[in-house]
Amino acid sequence: MAEDTLKQIFEYVDQHFDDHLAATQRYLRQPSISTENLGIQECAEMTAEMLRDLGADARLVPLQGGHPVVYGHLMSRNSDRTLLVYGMYDVQPVDPLEAWDSPPFEARIMDGRIIARGAINTKGPLMAFIHAVHSIQAVTGDVPVNLIFLIDGEEELGSRHLPQFIEQYTDELKTADAMYYHLPLETVKGHPQVSLGFKGIAYFELEVKTLPTDAHSMVGPVVNSSVWRLIWALNSMRGADDRIAIDGFYENVQPPTEEDERMLTDLLDIWGPRAFKEMYGITEFREGLDGLDLVREAIFAPGLNIDGFLSGYTGPGPKAIVPASAMCKIDIRLVPDMTVQEILDKVRAHLDRHGYGDIELRFVTGYDPARTSPKEHIAQAAVRALKRLDAEPGVVPILPGTAPQVLFSEPPLNLPFVMSGLGHGWLLHAPNEYFEVEGLLACEKSAVALLYEFADV
Amino acid sequence: MAEDTLKQIFEYVDQHFDDHLAATQRYLRQPSISTENLGIQECAEMTAEMLRDLGADARLVPLQGGHPVVYGHLMSRNSDRTLLVYGMYDVQPVDPLEAWDSPPFEARIMDGRIIARGAINTKGPLMAFIHAVHSIQAVTGDVPVNLIFLIDGEEELGSRHLPQFIEQYTDELKTADAMYYHLPLETVKGHPQVSLGFKGIAYFELEVKTLPTDAHSMVGPVVNSSVWRLIWALNSMRGADDRIAIDGFYENVQPPTEEDERMLTDLLDIWGPRAFKEMYGITEFREGLDGLDLVREAIFAPGLNIDGFLSGYTGPGPKAIVPASAMCKIDIRLVPDMTVQEILDKVRAHLDRHGYGDIELRFVTGYDPARTSPKEHIAQAAVRALKRLDAEPGVVPILPGTAPQVLFSEPPLNLPFVMSGLGHGWLLHAPNEYFEVEGLLACEKSAVALLYEFADV
Repeated sequence: MAEDTLKQIFEYVDQHFDDHLAATQRYLRQPSISTENLGIQECAEMTAEMLRDLGADARLVPLQGGHPVVYGHLMSRNSDRTLLVYGMYDVQPVDPLEAWDSPPFEARIMDGRIIARGAINTKGPLMAFIHAVHSIQAVTGDVPVNLIFLIDGEEELGSRHLPQFIEQYTDELKTADAMYYHLPLETVKGHPQVSLGFKGIAYFELEVKTLPTDAHSMVGPVVNSSVWRLIWALNSMRGADDRIAIDGFYENVQPPTEEDERMLTDLLDIWGPRAFKEMYGITEFREGLDGLDLVREAIFAPGLNIDGFLSGYTGPGPKAIVPASAMCKIDIRLVPDMTVQEILDKVRAHLDRHGYGDIELRFVTGYDPARTSPKEHIAQAAVRALKRLDAEPGVVPILPGTAPQVLFSEPPLNLPFVMSGLGHGWLLHAPNEYFEVEGLLACEKSAVALLYEFADV
Repeated sequence: MAEDTLKQIFEYVDQHFDDHLAATQRYLRQPSISTENLGIQECAEMTAEMLRDLGADARLVPLQGGHPVVYGHLMSRNSDRTLLVYGMYDVQPVDPLEAWDSPPFEARIMDGRIIARGAINTKGPLMAFIHAVHSIQAVTGDVPVNLIFLIDGEEELGSRHLPQFIEQYTDELKTADAMYYHLPLETVKGHPQVSLGFKGIAYFELEVKTLPTDAHSMVGPVVNSSVWRLIWALNSMRGADDRIAIDGFYENVQPPTEEDERMLTDLLDIWGPRAFKEMYGITEFREGLDGLDLVREAIFAPGLNIDGFLSGYTGPGPKAIVPASAMCKIDIRLVPDMTVQEILDKVRAHLDRHGYGDIELRFVTGYDPARTSPKEHIAQAAVRALKRLDAEPGVVPILPGTAPQVLFSEPPLNLPFVMSGLGHGWLLHAPNEYFEVEGLLACEKSAVALLYEFADV
């Protein structure tokens, strides 16, 4: 690699960072909550326009029943290597709104942090990538590899219509050598990571109705209660011993290999107790988990989580009713080799077998887990890129979070993939989501380095 | 009793019923939701004004921290017998508003029913009592007994400040010979009841917090979940075998006596399967309860009911979080000789003993159960009054619902009490609460008869 070129590009980034920061704030000010279909079209158009400014042939590809993909190519004059760049322009809802110190779509800078929904997950990093490409172009007049941009508008909805897109554009997408997702997961400041996999997710709702309408609670002693039934059904799935008791749940779970265990030991700072304390203020863990055991559980354990539970009257004062119905939202984080369909079937069978055939299971969204080998070129390029910026990344075999990478890693595309990037931000899916301003700067530079390392020049 | 006088009064009621109905609608149009402090002051003043129109010295007695009691005396020229007339001018909240066929404060008449919040519980019956007194006065120029009106503005809040009032006015209230609550509980049309008791209630909230803020659910496998903890705690209190397992819960519960059992057999139409079907459309009961067993359980069993449960995200789509906190609202219906304090202590001790010392228990409201003997004069007068109107009332030892009658039946007042009245209405605490128009008419007449039977003239 031409060290001088890289140095010049980094200088360019430094010199133009104020403009890049302002443009990032503008982008974050455009709401794009996919769940609520709020600002989606506007944000998609804004994204395409920015890619066109780079010279890409970006356009909105509508998906039947879903939000459009922003899609475009930017060809290199000097490389026949091609990188598929995945990103997302949608974000999570913002409630509880009152918990934000600054409005979620104001993108105010407070104490060196950009506070905004999407700041770190992941409109901020997408902007860093775009500015990295722009800076490379400004200095060199070209890009080091061919880029195919695929910017998802439904990641927070489980990318449920993305298979449509992949089917439609399989031939073009297969020209890529790898897939890259610029995801600066310095969850703990100063401890970047290169991630080679994602857990899958099965997200569904359970609902039980026992009465035609809410009833005065004086009938409580004689009627079947919806909310009690839901509690008992859930308790049968995960009881007070804190074990997941869904029949056959662990059947296909792959334990960590020796290579996995070696990776784990480098991850104590990233996914160990200190990380959870800094990330969430959490200092106590299930069953006193600590050290490497905590890391292993975070990365290799599937979870059975209740995201929400609603039944009856929850306002102020003493309204006394037997609620007609009760519902909860559940996500199960899938590790290799669990699959969405397998787990949904097992939950349904478990409910039926335990006498809860009346409980309705409604699938919401899901995708299977995905992993890439650390030996892949893109994985090694990502590690080298961060080291070039004097960072010592931990290599994470499977991120505890989820993204639809399986759509790219499985047939027909079969692409190796990696998530990486510098910069610290946090509070994904929570109030006061932030990306540090200096992290955004590092994030841009890490995208530059990644592209050159991937190009092998 | 002068049969002719009674006949003349009933004729007066018939002739003026259109006016009475219109006035009842006006009263129901005045919102008075105590939980939300909506329209309370206005409704209290409206109530006092109507009592003053009867000649009572009615006024609002403010209660520190609570809603005023409407209080007044109306003396008879011909009797030294005194009846304390309890009533309530407050109502339950109206949600879910969209479930009402007619707005809850429009008091529209549909299919022979007045649809309104408070129509049957119990602003409608209060108006029937007031119109009964008015009609007696119009025909006779007097009232058959002295009346002390005590109209509560916090019944739906558990009458939590009423003890203040009783303490302040003990001497005046003790001049009463009995307490009467005009409560036409023809839950099934054509089957009126005279009620000699109320269950008590202990209403409280449980809340558990395990995280400083909602966390991305990718941490689910390693953190303690608030909502799972609440589910396990609740399951320990009442498990899938549907038994209440709070330690010592049944310790003070008095089983029905032989006299109680005799009363039960007359109540199959009122509190048996047909009643539940007509009242709630409920045809299936806990553990297949049926017949007299169902009646016995409805009347003599304490309940452990969850009124509401809220945790995390409950909107549309797949927001994936571990909720920082979870809460539920619970009411326990107390039968003799359970007490509120005893039960709260037992719940707290149960939670502590089962490892849920972190779960906060917040008392909301409560009162102890209360019973009157069927041999009391007021009880026998109530039965005779309904029979005089060709009704065959069932005598209910304890109503499955609750009201703060214990405040009157226990020291210092020690008053016998009864709840009675003709007329069918239903959907208390639910959408489309109603009182049949012809039931309102019967309700007025039954108040007239009660007053004369109580006067023994």
